[in-house]
Amino acid sequence: MTSSISYFSPGPAKLPHEILVKLQDELVQYKSTQVSVMELSHRSKDFAEIIEGAESSVRELMNVPSNYKVLFLQGGGTGQFAAVPLNLMSRTGKADYIVTGSWSSKAAKEASKYGSVNLVLPKLEKYTTIPGKSSWKLDPEAAYVYYCANETVEGTWNVSFPIKRPFNTLHSYFRHTFFWKAPFFHTLYTFLTPFQFGVIYGGAQKNIGCPGVTVVIVREDLLGSPLPVCPSVLDYAVMAKNKSLYNTPPTFAIHVVGEVLAWVKREGGLDEMQRRSLEKSKMLYSVIDESNGFYNNPVDAAARSRMNVVFRVGEGGKDDLEAKFISQAASQGLLSLKGHRSVGGIRASVYNAITIDDVRRLAEFMKTFLKENKV
Amino acid sequence: MTSSISYFSPGPAKLPHEILVKLQDELVQYKSTQVSVMELSHRSKDFAEIIEGAESSVRELMNVPSNYKVLFLQGGGTGQFAAVPLNLMSRTGKADYIVTGSWSSKAAKEASKYGSVNLVLPKLEKYTTIPGKSSWKLDPEAAYVYYCANETVEGTWNVSFPIKRPFNTLHSYFRHTFFWKAPFFHTLYTFLTPFQFGVIYGGAQKNIGCPGVTVVIVREDLLGSPLPVCPSVLDYAVMAKNKSLYNTPPTFAIHVVGEVLAWVKREGGLDEMQRRSLEKSKMLYSVIDESNGFYNNPVDAAARSRMNVVFRVGEGGKDDLEAKFISQAASQGLLSLKGHRSVGGIRASVYNAITIDDVRRLAEFMKTFLKENKV
Repeated sequence: MTSSISYFSPGPAKLPHEILVKLQDELVQYKSTQVSVMELSHRSKDFAEIIEGAESSVRELMNVPSNYKVLFLQGGGTGQFAAVPLNLMSRTGKADYIVTGSWSSKAAKEASKYGSVNLVLPKLEKYTTIPGKSSWKLDPEAAYVYYCANETVEGTWNVSFPIKRPFNTLHSYFRHTFFWKAPFFHTLYTFLTPFQFGVIYGGAQKNIGCPGVTVVIVREDLLGSPLPVCPSVLDYAVMAKNKSLYNTPPTFAIHVVGEVLAWVKREGGLDEMQRRSLEKSKMLYSVIDESNGFYNNPVDAAARSRMNVVFRVGEGGKDDLEAKFISQAASQGLLSLKGHRSVGGIRASVYNAITIDDVRRLAEFMKTFLKENKV
Repeated sequence: MTSSISYFSPGPAKLPHEILVKLQDELVQYKSTQVSVMELSHRSKDFAEIIEGAESSVRELMNVPSNYKVLFLQGGGTGQFAAVPLNLMSRTGKADYIVTGSWSSKAAKEASKYGSVNLVLPKLEKYTTIPGKSSWKLDPEAAYVYYCANETVEGTWNVSFPIKRPFNTLHSYFRHTFFWKAPFFHTLYTFLTPFQFGVIYGGAQKNIGCPGVTVVIVREDLLGSPLPVCPSVLDYAVMAKNKSLYNTPPTFAIHVVGEVLAWVKREGGLDEMQRRSLEKSKMLYSVIDESNGFYNNPVDAAARSRMNVVFRVGEGGKDDLEAKFISQAASQGLLSLKGHRSVGGIRASVYNAITIDDVRRLAEFMKTFLKENKV
């Protein structure tokens, strides 16, 4: 029955079917342990293998340099909105935020609890483009620049963001500290040199697992200067020193990440995931662009997400037509296509576990729906 | 194979076997959703049923008054060590901590980041007793008193803690704000009036689920005055307002809690859990006390935990004999009996999912081991 549906949820998102089946097989008894992964002590050698395996896959897939730590934390992206300034703001008390959508906006708001936040871009009325660099106001005193690569609500993908930073003197390396939000695993790869970034993080529930664990990759020289009010569970240095086992970690969620990353490796790694991602998103954007305005995506072509394809149905977006689209799609097994409640419309999230066939089904449905409903 | 072992892990701990089997059956496809619980949107009506069901079970089992909120958070007990002062310290900037073991000690240390911490008890050399009230120094200015009911490392159970507080004027209700640490679900019941407490919390991985979710019960009048530096993910008011869905919650871990609590209800509720707990712990303490010093538990009889039975083997605790004990026990399927690395010895944790038969097996093993090894 599961094979008859395609699940385009924005997260918690689809997991590879074969991984779900493997997790199911092992749920009551994990390997030779005689207990469930959920029951395994986080100090046991069996769990050590799980978390070390997950870390090793992160390192291998992303070519993480040895001077970066890989952490498995709790609290999601929203927890990191606080953790980033709590760990890094102390250096100057100021930070630059590049606000390109709902998530980076929330990150900037949370950071203002901990220091002075400079908004680099002019305030945008709608998050459909990335303003030109001439309009940017970077603060030379900023301890770091915060950046969200993929905005899941508005479906923007900030590829126009300059990799060459204006800061290149030796003492200003903190200003190279960029942050990467979920779904990091895919977006990251589009730049060949992600590791000029100081901290990269993402909630697992988009591309690499289930809710409950956040992967954080942080450069070692950034550890150890948290604000005094930093809770221990969000302190990168405390967590790095204890290999993410300062307290009981979300063991099962970490196991799921390990299994999904092993699957990514078997499927061909991030090269292959990127290839599929381009093919999947292109298939949907093509239907939209060839619909003569029946479907419309408001995002600048250069800033369109490859993970979250958002669009309205009907001239300017017609609520009743969109409700009909969602309902008819669901009746054909195309599920979870409703846009974020803050923006409406349709959103098809095409994370790594979504197959090209899933997307083809959706594209065909869109074409048929267009024919049947075009005025 | 699972039925042939008894698993005394201190947490992550044993889950009821029938619940593991149910979770396994449903793992790939949850009810009629066609997706896994791990893939379910946290905004879907199916997940609303899960989290509301879990909350309703907490309320029913513990008779939670209507002026308390029930929250499902991330970050574990260690996260709450920060969350408690972050949410409640602001009232006077001071708090009383009753330090009776490793966990309350860590809680006090974390709280000192956020205000002035008064240690109520004289410093204890060993955590084996609760000093008499005449030695206590309560601060009348304290915004709250922090208390840990069951110390899992030292195996103490602070039943001698007075329920009648000296503060009973109308304006001093914050001083009734006590905190209850894991394994809260059982310990709580031993007092008939837990809801004089302002905040009660516990990590799920002891008695009510798997790692990754923390249940917090907080009185409504305590919400809304956090310190300005409180991260949103630890802000009780933010989480209460959003019914624990401010950000993506640990959906699967919450589902496990819901299933375990439904099991607790079917088994007879907290009355029955308490009855079993007394029987289980008494069985082990009897073997210890009747061993003429071969086994020894250093805790005052009145302060012995009903959840974590700790003991040394051999006069004063003999490392080689304890290693032999652990190894022989394991060969008979009695697993995870090693004491906390900070104190050594043996620890048998007898949480709700440990059956009376499990404990009987251990007690019999202990008697045989005594006969074979007594000098």
